Amino acid sequence: MKNITDILEERIKSLKNPTVVGLDPRLDYLPDALKKTATDSASAAQALEEYNRRIIDSIKDIVPAVKIQSAFYEMYGYHGVAAMEQTAAYAKKNGLIVMADVKRNDIGTTAEAYAAAFLDGDNYDYITVNPYPGYDGIKPFADACAKNNKGIFVLARMSNPSAADIQNMTLATGEPLYMHIGGLIEQWGRSMVGESGYSAIGAVVGATNPTEAAALRAKFKSVFFLVPGYGAQGGKGKDAAASFDGNGGGAIVNNSRGIIAAYKTDKYKGMTYYAAAREAAVAMADDLRAALGL
Amino acid sequence: MKNITDILEERIKSLKNPTVVGLDPRLDYLPDALKKTATDSASAAQALEEYNRRIIDSIKDIVPAVKIQSAFYEMYGYHGVAAMEQTAAYAKKNGLIVMADVKRNDIGTTAEAYAAAFLDGDNYDYITVNPYPGYDGIKPFADACAKNNKGIFVLARMSNPSAADIQNMTLATGEPLYMHIGGLIEQWGRSMVGESGYSAIGAVVGATNPTEAAALRAKFKSVFFLVPGYGAQGGKGKDAAASFDGNGGGAIVNNSRGIIAAYKTDKYKGMTYYAAAREAAVAMADDLRAALGL
Repeated sequence: MKNITDILEERIKSLKNPTVVGLDPRLDYLPDALKKTATDSASAAQALEEYNRRIIDSIKDIVPAVKIQSAFYEMYGYHGVAAMEQTAAYAKKNGLIVMADVKRNDIGTTAEAYAAAFLDGDNYDYITVNPYPGYDGIKPFADACAKNNKGIFVLARMSNPSAADIQNMTLATGEPLYMHIGGLIEQWGRSMVGESGYSAIGAVVGATNPTEAAALRAKFKSVFFLVPGYGAQGGKGKDAAASFDGNGGGAIVNNSRGIIAAYKTDKYKGMTYYAAAREAAVAMADDLRAALGL
Repeated sequence: MKNITDILEERIKSLKNPTVVGLDPRLDYLPDALKKTATDSASAAQALEEYNRRIIDSIKDIVPAVKIQSAFYEMYGYHGVAAMEQTAAYAKKNGLIVMADVKRNDIGTTAEAYAAAFLDGDNYDYITVNPYPGYDGIKPFADACAKNNKGIFVLARMSNPSAADIQNMTLATGEPLYMHIGGLIEQWGRSMVGESGYSAIGAVVGATNPTEAAALRAKFKSVFFLVPGYGAQGGKGKDAAASFDGNGGGAIVNNSRGIIAAYKTDKYKGMTYYAAAREAAVAMADDLRAALGL
């Protein structure tokens, strides 16, 4: 049977587009008419969901996946969580692979409860997970992935400047911590490698550190990468390319505000937010194709 | 002005009880009559909230704080999140200090959104945070704490067996990672030390590793500890004692199922769940007082 990462790789290849669109909406991004409808948590959540739906309609035939960042929904309390669930359901209905960027982490039965929250239902195909608790904090998620044919991306080397504070600490072995974590991720996912050669247990590896991404890519060949940091954080196609294998596979690159708020930039001035999102997604696909020689 | 940890320390001292009751309810814990009302996500969430309310009523005059584990609510979707919010509001109304055990972690504006979700409103006094993203992932929470007089507990050395996989890695400096993280936590919280000598930026340090807790306690004198692992995970009062300073201050010890599901054990057989919770909380306070010489 194909695992979820096989399915993701197939979609990426058929669209020639290793892009995941980050649905991280903020009220600031919304056009005035929609923003005005947001007068409390319930209506703000509804406005974000409406915004997401139009973007999904506009990009669903050119990108394989969306990533939903839970923080921007949780700030509107349970109304926001309902909007996150509905956004995910709408994206799934429209044929997209859906990632929940929740960075959850806990142990034992608590991690089982998080796995039930995000990996048991139909809404999400992948979630992001923080590795700090060690294997006790991974196994419940990995078990849910095996049972439901889902996947996780475990934080390895993040895209932000201070990620180095901890992730680049040199261990007594001489290895930086992120390489040790990369090795754990490979080991945790070894029994879940699919036909594509990639496991359902992947890693988060930022586009902003191409040297480190290349080191991880070279060493951990069965680990699929989710790559943040493209666009607003400074990463470009040629930086993201370090996370891919020799065949343009093995990774997917996220872009959030660079796509969903593209209409706010000079380049797409005068367009609707959803038309601009499509244009920006096309431009990003072109950039990645050029960088990867696709 | 007193910071939130000064206020927590005062409550602990006036009750002579450094216990936080973990409100991590599961349907399995509920008495049959209440469990029967849980037929879908909405009614399950309502049943958990009802369960929590009776426990809060029963323990509010003998413990200073409760800790709400988000996973057990999120598994019921937005209904569960509403029940979590209502549980927190009820606990606050009843004079308890409320911690949300969410272990959130992200960077920049995403961490700001999580801080808005959990540290801007009235429901929560503290949340738990994972340090893996480094200071970019702490600063937005620390800023919200300074603005709203709230606190965070950052994971340092967790209570689960495999925490050692990562947290005990020896660094090139010879130091284990958890000690390095302890140093970062002290540094991150240095500007937020209150009258009690403790900062609003605390650390999570498991009761199951007293030697490591003692090393952290000895070195980082301004860091207040949230101590999981007591009870069901095997930690006892004398193990937890390693996290306290010489005056019986500087730490608070969590117990979840050992209190809220005490009525399921032989010791409290025949009691209601909320009466048993009170008895178990009294027994735990006695154990900690004896271990700390209070």
